[in-house]
Amino acid sequence: MTARVLVVDDVLHNVKLLEAKLRSEYFDVLTAMNGMDALEIIEKDQPDIILLDVMMPGMDGFEVCRRVKANPAVAHIPIIMVTALDQPKDRVMGLEAGADDFLTKPIQDLPLFARVKSLVRLKVLMDELRIRNSTGQAFTSEGALQNSASFKLDDAKILLIEDYERVANRIIGYLDQTVETVDLDDVSGGTLSTENMGQYDLFIISLSLREADGLRLCSSIRSNEVTRHTPILILIDEGDHATLIQAMDLGVTDYVTRPIDGNELLARVKSQIRHKRFADYLRGNMQKNMEMAVTDAVTNLYNRHFLDTHLESVFSQQNEKQANVSLLMLDIDHFKKVNDTYGHSSGDEVLEEFSKRITNNIRSIDLAARYGGEEFVIVMPETDVEFALYIAERLRRTISDEPFVISGSESPIHVTVSIGVSIVGEGCDTREKLFAEADKGLYQAKKTGRNKVCGIRCLDNEQAS
Amino acid sequence: MTARVLVVDDVLHNVKLLEAKLRSEYFDVLTAMNGMDALEIIEKDQPDIILLDVMMPGMDGFEVCRRVKANPAVAHIPIIMVTALDQPKDRVMGLEAGADDFLTKPIQDLPLFARVKSLVRLKVLMDELRIRNSTGQAFTSEGALQNSASFKLDDAKILLIEDYERVANRIIGYLDQTVETVDLDDVSGGTLSTENMGQYDLFIISLSLREADGLRLCSSIRSNEVTRHTPILILIDEGDHATLIQAMDLGVTDYVTRPIDGNELLARVKSQIRHKRFADYLRGNMQKNMEMAVTDAVTNLYNRHFLDTHLESVFSQQNEKQANVSLLMLDIDHFKKVNDTYGHSSGDEVLEEFSKRITNNIRSIDLAARYGGEEFVIVMPETDVEFALYIAERLRRTISDEPFVISGSESPIHVTVSIGVSIVGEGCDTREKLFAEADKGLYQAKKTGRNKVCGIRCLDNEQAS
Repeated sequence: MTARVLVVDDVLHNVKLLEAKLRSEYFDVLTAMNGMDALEIIEKDQPDIILLDVMMPGMDGFEVCRRVKANPAVAHIPIIMVTALDQPKDRVMGLEAGADDFLTKPIQDLPLFARVKSLVRLKVLMDELRIRNSTGQAFTSEGALQNSASFKLDDAKILLIEDYERVANRIIGYLDQTVETVDLDDVSGGTLSTENMGQYDLFIISLSLREADGLRLCSSIRSNEVTRHTPILILIDEGDHATLIQAMDLGVTDYVTRPIDGNELLARVKSQIRHKRFADYLRGNMQKNMEMAVTDAVTNLYNRHFLDTHLESVFSQQNEKQANVSLLMLDIDHFKKVNDTYGHSSGDEVLEEFSKRITNNIRSIDLAARYGGEEFVIVMPETDVEFALYIAERLRRTISDEPFVISGSESPIHVTVSIGVSIVGEGCDTREKLFAEADKGLYQAKKTGRNKVCGIRCLDNEQAS
Repeated sequence: MTARVLVVDDVLHNVKLLEAKLRSEYFDVLTAMNGMDALEIIEKDQPDIILLDVMMPGMDGFEVCRRVKANPAVAHIPIIMVTALDQPKDRVMGLEAGADDFLTKPIQDLPLFARVKSLVRLKVLMDELRIRNSTGQAFTSEGALQNSASFKLDDAKILLIEDYERVANRIIGYLDQTVETVDLDDVSGGTLSTENMGQYDLFIISLSLREADGLRLCSSIRSNEVTRHTPILILIDEGDHATLIQAMDLGVTDYVTRPIDGNELLARVKSQIRHKRFADYLRGNMQKNMEMAVTDAVTNLYNRHFLDTHLESVFSQQNEKQANVSLLMLDIDHFKKVNDTYGHSSGDEVLEEFSKRITNNIRSIDLAARYGGEEFVIVMPETDVEFALYIAERLRRTISDEPFVISGSESPIHVTVSIGVSIVGEGCDTREKLFAEADKGLYQAKKTGRNKVCGIRCLDNEQAS
C-alpha cells in the first residue's frame, strides 16, 4: 500500500535521508523544514500521512500536531511523531497532542515502513467511511468528532494472550485499562473459543507462547467477521524481522519489542483504542444515516422513497413470488380533526401508536411504509386474496377496538381506519395499477361510511365482525 | 491481509495441497469436495473468498458460481475459478458465470497468494460500503445490484502505458474497450501529468518501459486521491517474482505475464472494470443515501433533523462566530387554501418554487431548511440585526412580488410569506430561546395581517416598501 508522505524536520540531512528511504519503497514524498511550511503543505496537498519531528526551532512538532488536529479539513490525516530515544515522555505528550503513532530516532527501516503502512491501511478504510463533499462536512459538524484524538479511553477492554504469568502480570501493571487474560487451553486449532470476542477494544498477543502459535491466533482474529477491525498489538523479540514482516502482512496493527518499555506499551495501547473507537463511531454514524434515509422520523416505518424503491424491485425482478404480492392502502379516518382538536403533537402520538399496532400485526416479511400525512401502505408478499382481506380486516379492528390514549386528551380517543386492498394478478401487473386498484378500494371504503376494508371485494365492518 | 478461504475441489489430493499452502501463509481454510457441500458451507460460514474448481462431477464449478452470484446473501463473496491450462475458454465462461478471477492448474504459490490477497483487500473495502443488517439488505434490493457481475462494460475507458508501439497496438487489438495511450514525454518525475485521470476505468502499465519506471507510475496513481481506487493491471515478465511481489505490495490490482495471452488479458480487463463499476456504484449509493438523510424530498432543502444537528453544533462549539448568528422563521400564508383549492401536487409545486426563490436569495454560508409542512427556517452566520431584517424583507418581496405559475391553475396564484426574525445575543443564548424569539416574531406577523417581517423590531410591509 503506497501513499503520499510529508516529512517534516528542520535538519536537511534527516529530511533527505527519510525521503530517500521512502522513495526507494515507492512512496510519494513531500518535505517541509519548519512548522509553518508544514501546515501550509498539509492544507494544500492533503498528504496521506505526516512524519513529524518533535524538536524544531520556532513552532515545535507538538504545536504543529495540535493545529492539524484542530483543523477539520485535515484532522483526519494520521501523524507519526519522531521522538528522541532518551525522551520517553515525548511519546505521551505526542499522543496528547493528537498524534497517531511515534517513531524513535535513529529511524530504522522496518519500524518506519511497518508503521507507515499500518496507518495508511487504516486511513484508506476510514476515507471510505468519511464523506468528502459538502454534505459530509456538514455532517461531521455533528459533535465535531473529526479525528481519533477526541475519543475517550474509559471502559476500554483488552484481551491479553501471554502464557508466562509473571510477564502477563507485569503488562497488566503497565496499563490503566481493564485487561482480561485467556487460558490457552481454550485455544484449539488456532481458533480462540472465547465467546463475545467482539467486546474487546484491543488484543495484545505474545508471539512467544508456549502452547500456541501467536501468528495463527492473529490470523484467526482477522478472519473472523466480528473482530476483523479490532486492533491487534503483538509482543515480539527485538530483531525478529522476518516474523514482524509476516505479522504486519497478516494485518497486525501495532507491535512492541521485548524487553517491553511500559511507557511505550501504554502509549501504543491508548492510541490503538482511540483509533478503534473513532472507526466504530464512523461506522455507527454511517449506519444511522443509512437508516434515516429510509425511515419516517415520526412513525419509524419505512418512508415513501423506500417503498417506491422496494416496489420497483418487486416488479423489475423476474420474481416468481411477484404473482402473490398484495397491497394494502390505509388512511386514518378524520385525522385532520385530531390535529385540529388536540394539536399537532397529539396528532403525532396517534400516528406513532397507529404504526405500532400495524407493525405488531403484520409478518416480518411484510413491509409497512408511511405514504403521506395519515396514509400508509403495506406490501405483503406470498399473500392470496383471502389472506390479504383477512389481515386488512384484522388491522382495521386492531385500530378501532381499542381507543388511543394520548397526552393531549383526558379521555382516550376513538380512531378508525379505512383500507383499500389490491393484489398482483390479471390486469394488475404494474406498480401503477396495483396502487390504482388499492386506491379505488380506499375511496369506496371512505365513501360508504369509513372504518371498513374494500377492494377485491368489499368487506363491510358489520358483515366482518 | 489474511482471510477465510473456501477450497472446492473433487480431488482430495488437490484440496489437501491447497489447504496446506494457504495454511502455511496463515489463511483460515474451509474445504468442500462437491458443489452441493460448497453451497451449504458458503451460506453457513460466509467465507471471504472461494477457490472453485471448474471440473467436478455432478454440479460443475460454473453452476456453483452462478448460484452463489444469484443468492443475495452471499453474492458479494469473491470467487476465483480454477481452470485447466489447456481450456482458455473456461476463463471467459467463468467470468460470464460471475467469477471474479481465475487461476490455472497447476496452481503456483505466487499467483495464488497475489490474487487471493488482492481480492481480499478489495472485499474489505467493499464490506465497509455494504450494509449488513436488515436495513442494508432492504437497501441492496434497489435494482438488485448485489455484485460486480451485474455491471455492464459499455463505454469503458482504459489508459495504456506501453512505449513499444508494436506491443501497444497488439494489446489494443485484444481489447473491446476504448484504449488511450500516453506519450511518455508527459511523464516527469514519476508523475503522470495527464489531466482528468479520474476518467479512466483501468490503467494497464508495462513494467518494461524504456523511458520511465513503471512501478513509480503505479505508486503515483495509488497516491493520487482521484485514482486511488482505479484498478491497475501490470504487464510483467514471466518469472520476475521479486518485482511482482513489490507491485502487489504497492496496491497493483492484477497482472498478466509476457508473452501476453490475448484471451487472458481480455478476461482480466473485463473483470477489473466490473469491480471498479461495482465499487463506484456502492460509493455513489452511499453518497446518495447520506444526502437523502439530510434533505427534504419535496424542496431539496435540508430537513428538520439536519437543522437541529446544525444548530446543536453552533451552540455546542466554542464558536466565536456564534454571537452573530441570526434565525429566520418563515411560514407561507394561507397555504392550506392552496392545497384545498388546487390539490396536493399543486401545493408541492408551490413549495418547490418557494424554496427555489429562497435558495437564490441567500448566501452560500446560510442554511435553509424545511421545518414542517409550510414552515421554513434559515440560519445565517455572521449576520447583524440590520442585515437579518434586510434579507428577511428581501425574501418576503421575492415571494409576494411575482405570482407563482403552477400546473393546477390557469392563472398564476399570489403567494405571500410571514417571517419572524431573531438573533443570538443577550438573553437569547440557547437554541430554544432563538427559536422562541423567531416564533414570537412570526406570530406577531401573522396576527397583524401577514405578508410581513417581524422580530427584533417589526417591519410593516407598507413601511418597508
